[in-house]
Amino acid sequence: MNPVLQSEINNLIQNSDYETLDHFCRESIPMVVAESLSVFPPEEILKVISRQEPALMARIFCDLPVDVQLNVAGKMDNSALVLLVTWMDPDDRVDFLKDLPGDRVGPIMRSLAKAEREDIRLLSSYEEGTAGSVMTSDYVALKASLTVKEATSRIRLEAPDKESIYYSYIIDDNRTLLGFISLKNIIMANPKDLLSQVMHDNIVSVGVNEDKHEAARIISRYDLIAVPVVDEENRIVGIITHDDAVDIIEEEHSDDLDMIAGLTNIDDDTSYLKTSVWSNYRSRVIWLALMVFMGLISGAVIQKFSDALSRMMILTVYIPMLGGTGGNSGSQASAVVIRALGTGSITIKNFFAVIWKEFRVSLLLAVTLGILTFVRVYFFSGSQIFPPGINIVTVSVTIGLALAIQVITATILGGILPMIASVFKIDPAVVASPALSSIVDITGLLIYFNLARLILGI
Amino acid sequence: MNPVLQSEINNLIQNSDYETLDHFCRESIPMVVAESLSVFPPEEILKVISRQEPALMARIFCDLPVDVQLNVAGKMDNSALVLLVTWMDPDDRVDFLKDLPGDRVGPIMRSLAKAEREDIRLLSSYEEGTAGSVMTSDYVALKASLTVKEATSRIRLEAPDKESIYYSYIIDDNRTLLGFISLKNIIMANPKDLLSQVMHDNIVSVGVNEDKHEAARIISRYDLIAVPVVDEENRIVGIITHDDAVDIIEEEHSDDLDMIAGLTNIDDDTSYLKTSVWSNYRSRVIWLALMVFMGLISGAVIQKFSDALSRMMILTVYIPMLGGTGGNSGSQASAVVIRALGTGSITIKNFFAVIWKEFRVSLLLAVTLGILTFVRVYFFSGSQIFPPGINIVTVSVTIGLALAIQVITATILGGILPMIASVFKIDPAVVASPALSSIVDITGLLIYFNLARLILGI
Repeated sequence: MNPVLQSEINNLIQNSDYETLDHFCRESIPMVVAESLSVFPPEEILKVISRQEPALMARIFCDLPVDVQLNVAGKMDNSALVLLVTWMDPDDRVDFLKDLPGDRVGPIMRSLAKAEREDIRLLSSYEEGTAGSVMTSDYVALKASLTVKEATSRIRLEAPDKESIYYSYIIDDNRTLLGFISLKNIIMANPKDLLSQVMHDNIVSVGVNEDKHEAARIISRYDLIAVPVVDEENRIVGIITHDDAVDIIEEEHSDDLDMIAGLTNIDDDTSYLKTSVWSNYRSRVIWLALMVFMGLISGAVIQKFSDALSRMMILTVYIPMLGGTGGNSGSQASAVVIRALGTGSITIKNFFAVIWKEFRVSLLLAVTLGILTFVRVYFFSGSQIFPPGINIVTVSVTIGLALAIQVITATILGGILPMIASVFKIDPAVVASPALSSIVDITGLLIYFNLARLILGI
Repeated sequence: MNPVLQSEINNLIQNSDYETLDHFCRESIPMVVAESLSVFPPEEILKVISRQEPALMARIFCDLPVDVQLNVAGKMDNSALVLLVTWMDPDDRVDFLKDLPGDRVGPIMRSLAKAEREDIRLLSSYEEGTAGSVMTSDYVALKASLTVKEATSRIRLEAPDKESIYYSYIIDDNRTLLGFISLKNIIMANPKDLLSQVMHDNIVSVGVNEDKHEAARIISRYDLIAVPVVDEENRIVGIITHDDAVDIIEEEHSDDLDMIAGLTNIDDDTSYLKTSVWSNYRSRVIWLALMVFMGLISGAVIQKFSDALSRMMILTVYIPMLGGTGGNSGSQASAVVIRALGTGSITIKNFFAVIWKEFRVSLLLAVTLGILTFVRVYFFSGSQIFPPGINIVTVSVTIGLALAIQVITATILGGILPMIASVFKIDPAVVASPALSSIVDITGLLIYFNLARLILGI
């Protein structure tokens, strides 16, 4: 937010200079207006936006943070709120009504026109996470039999109401999707041509019950401004626009980061400084407690071998390094595989190809790191007293070899787990979470101690 | 990629049915065409795309994967390549010439028209990572004194050449940016109005030397199709479009994930299965080796206390849990702070507010996890033999307290480090990398052993 602009707005509000504020509202991007207004009391915001045309008022209102929206709505009577809701974009409208307290939703729904009511019912009927749940019903649909000239006047007529007029979707009498045409193509086309002649008929679309991430991926991959959403019979029911795709992509990435860090139920809409200590605590404690319990399992493994360890403390020294390196190599492999699954460059069909590649990569890593470790243990361990039959060579070999095997196991595990998660339609990033580190902590200790028993006979 | 479509294309190519292929090229999104052609030999791709109009040929060509582009270009003589390059979008053109072998770039640059040559020089003159380095010079700029009707004919005239005509930028005689107008506004406006009357004059823009991520954030935040790029004197020099913004956002997130996993120099353009084992190895080995060395420091700490440990093996049992919990709570805190820095909801000015909040959160976590650990050690340690003066109560208190202090230290460290990184203009995600876990491994051991010395006197 531009601080100069903000202080100007502060002045205008303090001086009740509503005419200049009107100009600011009309001349700026609605989100800019919403950002600078959101710091004021709801009465003040309402006073400023109520002076605007209803379409603009609705746009600015929808760009306010959710908590501010609810405060402003709290100051409005039902009839004013009905007008506001009528002018909202269909997808924003559904989101707003979901957030509004139940006792206000009823009266407003009853006062809305039938068309809007049915539109709301339809849009809110799709399951969370589907393309249908994020689409808007504001799009331009044109019959293929129109001429370019007729299409142009239709678009001009519909423009004020539509969120996006840059793509028009071409349909038949059953609303079956036949093709699309961009406004750019329409502008360049001969006005007498039929839409059926100039439209693109090889069109990408997304099913209404498909994952919304799939819709975002299509928009990103094909550089689209919007993607049409179709039902089972290929009839168009809505569109998802590029700005919604960006939101979906950003949400997905921040969910991934949360999962990797072991954070649960983070509220994305509230800023860090506003989130309470308590809700911060709740989002973190579950995974941490879980991992403490997992740590107890690795503790039990150490306990089992504690006699041997007490006789050879040098083995204890390398326990943290072994666990850490396992965790790191496992999460590297899982990061690479998660990314490849995300971009679609591998699927579960490549299961064995992935294992084979990860095995070869881990072999190189294991040799490098195993030798590094051997050198360190052999040359820099100082004078150690060993039980009979054991010497610094056998100990160095044991530790180096344990690290090598740990790297191979952890890498392959890190590569396999995301693929298994994706088969069960679980977000693969969940395995990049602290769980992987805890698992390889345990496998690492088992490898280590069993190898020590085998080679050193302890 | 739709497998049905792909097998159809295979048939068409095998049967040399070029007329149907022409239809497919014209009727589909260029990226779809590029995807289905990219599996064929370069000669075959060249045969199909050479039959198209030069603008379409250039679009399809630019959507091919880089390695395929170079193979196809290898089959073209210089004059054909000059024509192709001329028709490319300016930003794609610069990218392509960067990838093309040096010995072919020279002759092509010399054969290009002067306007294109200067455009290329200008676009490639901006530093990597700046808004200038990703902008395109294909945008519609209109004088404020034009009427809406005149503007419409100008846009219609320029449409075939321009990547994006949905926003027009309004300039004065010095190309100073005065405002913008969307094609939607133009369509709805009175043809006789002047652009200066109907344009939005409060416009967001990005400086040519600003970070490209800032441009992407503006597009995402304000739901724009494009953002104008201006020089120091506020003259428009280019635009960045929504599809480039999506690429920047996705690249940033995948860079973050790489950093968190400790991956270096990953080649994003090559798919997982095509990347060689060797380059996979190189991207992973640096961090792993570094962390092995860090692990040796924690090893040295253990070594220093090995006498005490050998007398009280129960302390060894909880070493992995202590390190793991520290790593987890540290990376949770850093994930939360990195996200808050990314969305702009905190800056370095909030340094102490962040520490204070993290301290309170960590206190709650420390109490919970400390008590959990105490209970586990006290009730489930079986029969242990302790040196004189030490009993299970003091041991349980030591371990529980060590964990609590470790959680507080690691959480605050995890919260501080990303802020410090951001001051030095380092990507904050770098501290969420394995480095943090290794650091808190060491601090955790120091806390643990010193506390044991203090309480247990070992």
